[in-house]
Amino acid sequence: MTTITAQTRVCGILGHPVGHSLSPVLHNVAFAARGLPFAYVAHDVRPEDLPAAIAGARALGYRGLSVTIPHKVAAMACVDEVDPTARGIGCINTVVNTKGRLRGHNSDGLGALGALRAAGVDPAGHRVVVLGSGGAARAIAMTLALEAPPAKLSVLGVVPEELAILVSDLTARGRAPVEGLAFDEATLGAALAGAELLLNCTPVGMHPKTDASPVPARYLRRNLSVLDAVYNPRRTQLLKDAAATGATVVEGLEMFLGQAVVQFELFTGEPAPVEVMRQVLEANL
Amino acid sequence: MTTITAQTRVCGILGHPVGHSLSPVLHNVAFAARGLPFAYVAHDVRPEDLPAAIAGARALGYRGLSVTIPHKVAAMACVDEVDPTARGIGCINTVVNTKGRLRGHNSDGLGALGALRAAGVDPAGHRVVVLGSGGAARAIAMTLALEAPPAKLSVLGVVPEELAILVSDLTARGRAPVEGLAFDEATLGAALAGAELLLNCTPVGMHPKTDASPVPARYLRRNLSVLDAVYNPRRTQLLKDAAATGATVVEGLEMFLGQAVVQFELFTGEPAPVEVMRQVLEANL
Repeated sequence: MTTITAQTRVCGILGHPVGHSLSPVLHNVAFAARGLPFAYVAHDVRPEDLPAAIAGARALGYRGLSVTIPHKVAAMACVDEVDPTARGIGCINTVVNTKGRLRGHNSDGLGALGALRAAGVDPAGHRVVVLGSGGAARAIAMTLALEAPPAKLSVLGVVPEELAILVSDLTARGRAPVEGLAFDEATLGAALAGAELLLNCTPVGMHPKTDASPVPARYLRRNLSVLDAVYNPRRTQLLKDAAATGATVVEGLEMFLGQAVVQFELFTGEPAPVEVMRQVLEANL
Repeated sequence: MTTITAQTRVCGILGHPVGHSLSPVLHNVAFAARGLPFAYVAHDVRPEDLPAAIAGARALGYRGLSVTIPHKVAAMACVDEVDPTARGIGCINTVVNTKGRLRGHNSDGLGALGALRAAGVDPAGHRVVVLGSGGAARAIAMTLALEAPPAKLSVLGVVPEELAILVSDLTARGRAPVEGLAFDEATLGAALAGAELLLNCTPVGMHPKTDASPVPARYLRRNLSVLDAVYNPRRTQLLKDAAATGATVVEGLEMFLGQAVVQFELFTGEPAPVEVMRQVLEANL
């Protein structure tokens, strides 16, 4: 990477723990690839220190922050303004400092949307099924409902209260018709029969139970595109089954890459070097 | 330099302005030369933001800070404890964070002391003349009085109140006999006649008035070693005149280098790569 000088703008990630984050390598390689005078460091911040850490980043003149577990919700109260999509999601994973004013964003859903579009799949105006109602599902479903409204958005969940809140929030804030459905096989089959895009936001299929899939293979077909938020393994059982039908599939790695691309562009105002960043992830995930 | 990862420990400099500081390049090159997982960034911090910046550096888990103009005095109130020499000097230029506890140090005088010793000149037990009573004079005189007490320490100044305070502080805290003298040519000549070491802590001789010297050449001699805190130009008129007598001379660059060496070792606990750091300064000053 380029040597840091006194003109270098500083960005960082706040997490706890943070020692295994790929974000520093990913962003620093990307800054260097674009020849930008930026550096990106990692900070392990305890929850009780988060307000001082964010106030400190402002006082120190950080250009931007990534915010990760367990700080995504609490960080929202530490910034001056929150992007409407992030407000709808209910948490932020990005802070941009413009002349001392901090604005919170959430790039997780935008990362998924960017990955879908890069694969030639635009959710807008189509029928979309989301599996799960946790943090990833919230980020993706709310982003779609606000930024690329599907013709119909069906959310299948196994935690009734969480599902009800998500559906209520999507209905109140989004621009798409939404339905919440209990996640059982019959409901899943019926929902998928009319859908063009399936988004797995559950952890099913993640290492080490890599032969599990949230969807029986018989419900998959060529004209049902599939994104899996799971990125370990890159090619989950769900994606293998979907790809076997000839469907377009989007790996979780592309979603992870997509959220970092959004952050890079918020921090620098420059287009991200996507191929370089993908290579870093492929080498490290 | 080495790519920053999530394990990289972060250090930084706080100043205002800070855009021309050489410290980031100096320390980053030194970290890389030692293969240490450290990075050093620069932060332009307004005076009103200093407390939040230092509290933030603690919350963010910074390993260390350099502190420069205009923050050296105010920073002392923002740390948990202050090294006795720094307390005597009255300001800090270094903060070390050990498990959330911040300790302030002042490496300016130690840098000068290290540079003298590296040149084979030990002030301890010898007669020393200091020219000036400002910040550099305070740092060097107090450090000598505490850490390498001269047989006699004569301080010549042109600002009577400032000189009186310095002499009073040195007398109260130090371990050397101290005298304060009005800086005129007769006094200077008399003081130098009995001295073995002369330390110029005035700006006389600094660019652009490079043919000025605080000491007429006739007072210089082979057995009067000379350190000049001025580092632009590296070889001041004073040092040229002293070197012409065969005296040992120590350039301001070595003092600047010395304070960075002290900081490096406080931050990392490892011996500094002095030659590598000297080359960076020579290439950039």
